[in-house]
Amino acid sequence: MRRDVLVNGSGVDQVAVADRGLHYGDGLFETLAVLDGQPRLWQRHVTRLREGCARLGIAMPDPSILYDEARALCREHARAVLKIIVTRGAGGRGYRPPIRAQHSAPTRIVAVYPWPDYPAAYAEEGIALRVCRTRLGCNPALAGMKHLNRLEQVLARAEWDDPAIAEGLMLDQRERVIAGTMSNLFLVREGRLLTPRLDECGVAGIMRGLILESAVQQGIAVEIGDLSLECLRLADEIFVSNSVAGLWPVRRLAQMTYAVGPLTSALRTGLMAVQRQEMADSADSSNG
Amino acid sequence: MRRDVLVNGSGVDQVAVADRGLHYGDGLFETLAVLDGQPRLWQRHVTRLREGCARLGIAMPDPSILYDEARALCREHARAVLKIIVTRGAGGRGYRPPIRAQHSAPTRIVAVYPWPDYPAAYAEEGIALRVCRTRLGCNPALAGMKHLNRLEQVLARAEWDDPAIAEGLMLDQRERVIAGTMSNLFLVREGRLLTPRLDECGVAGIMRGLILESAVQQGIAVEIGDLSLECLRLADEIFVSNSVAGLWPVRRLAQMTYAVGPLTSALRTGLMAVQRQEMADSADSSNG
Repeated sequence: MRRDVLVNGSGVDQVAVADRGLHYGDGLFETLAVLDGQPRLWQRHVTRLREGCARLGIAMPDPSILYDEARALCREHARAVLKIIVTRGAGGRGYRPPIRAQHSAPTRIVAVYPWPDYPAAYAEEGIALRVCRTRLGCNPALAGMKHLNRLEQVLARAEWDDPAIAEGLMLDQRERVIAGTMSNLFLVREGRLLTPRLDECGVAGIMRGLILESAVQQGIAVEIGDLSLECLRLADEIFVSNSVAGLWPVRRLAQMTYAVGPLTSALRTGLMAVQRQEMADSADSSNG
Repeated sequence: MRRDVLVNGSGVDQVAVADRGLHYGDGLFETLAVLDGQPRLWQRHVTRLREGCARLGIAMPDPSILYDEARALCREHARAVLKIIVTRGAGGRGYRPPIRAQHSAPTRIVAVYPWPDYPAAYAEEGIALRVCRTRLGCNPALAGMKHLNRLEQVLARAEWDDPAIAEGLMLDQRERVIAGTMSNLFLVREGRLLTPRLDECGVAGIMRGLILESAVQQGIAVEIGDLSLECLRLADEIFVSNSVAGLWPVRRLAQMTYAVGPLTSALRTGLMAVQRQEMADSADSSNG
């Protein structure tokens, strides 16, 4: 009985070789930060997972079962990373999903991993970012979802092994800047917050959503649109975000250097407030 | 001990939950026809698998081991389908492939499936083809490979369940016709054979390669380029191909009907000759 992974509720570290997640990447995942035994931003992750399941036509597992499994794995972890994978389940050969009436149940995998040892300087002083050669393909049918087809990110992340570079920027086939390999991208220009639209490629991160909400609450003008490398060159501030890292300012990109600017700092403070509130709410609800 | 699947040589039907094939679709596959206990066109499939492994930076498994495993599973099957999956192997969390020196071995999966019960009329009289709404994204870094990121095909194949329709046609984001969900596409126009180029999306099928060679040997003019739905409307003959189906003429597409034409028939005859020769060669080499 393993204590770090549950496959359909069992503490085993194997899945059926017939699983469509393996054959086709036919599924979705979520990556959550765990703090004091609690998976953070749970409702937001479950909502995105449910939306992804609806788009792919996969039956969404019962969130309360997922939550119980997540809590069972996280309970004793002060800091950890939780990953949830939901696939369409086992199937025969062929792309066609099993017919609804006969369909095998989705596979749910809940696993806990050690907290990554990111240097504290990433969050405080900022990171160095590179531009990847590997591009993102555009497909509105898949855009925004955190699905299991991630070869583009794998190839992009394999492009460098310099530990001084924390993240790589990915462009699409039309030279638009979309995201980091594992993060969303923001820039600040003349007091406005800009982030790429994700309706053709990229993953709509939970932390990205939180930052956009926080910006609106703080009265910061927000724009979601097409960004180029030239926009980054002209930016006053740049940062990236994901559910584990939170928000990392970008200190360097190619020949350009950037300071940790006032909007970046304000948004980080705002994020921390939102997360403190969310923790208080979740403590209330588990007490109630 | 299972007789229909081998995972790294063991007759088990489970893979490690940490496998990167499951987490990211980080791997490749091949689907082969099995006839009289022999996987067909073995060398061609192994060559494509090796090229795919090189492109993804995955260590190619020893082909002689793969062959022994394939033969062990196929030996008693008069007709069957063989599937080979090679993934980057187990890994931790994160897109970054394990560093070469420490990298875990690739996972190899060899599995045998029943021969599909396609009606004989598909090959003899032709099939009905539909046009899918789901598009293919363009990415030269992934184009041509039979990798495990197949959500586009899954979504396209989920669009219909009318058993009278054997295959669905997929276009790219720029309205170019690329392929069927599980097949390559050819058309004949004024004595010339045309097939879509696959340098931005699609899978370069083994049967497609064989058909192109066969056409050249027969002195048929061949053109690989951009095709539109309008090209299909104007075509004299249309057919699709894959390693299991071989060659299926297209009888109907939207409002259009097509006859099984002379080039389609000549190419099918040519294919059968090539495959007979290949069977004779492989019988020679196994005797020698």
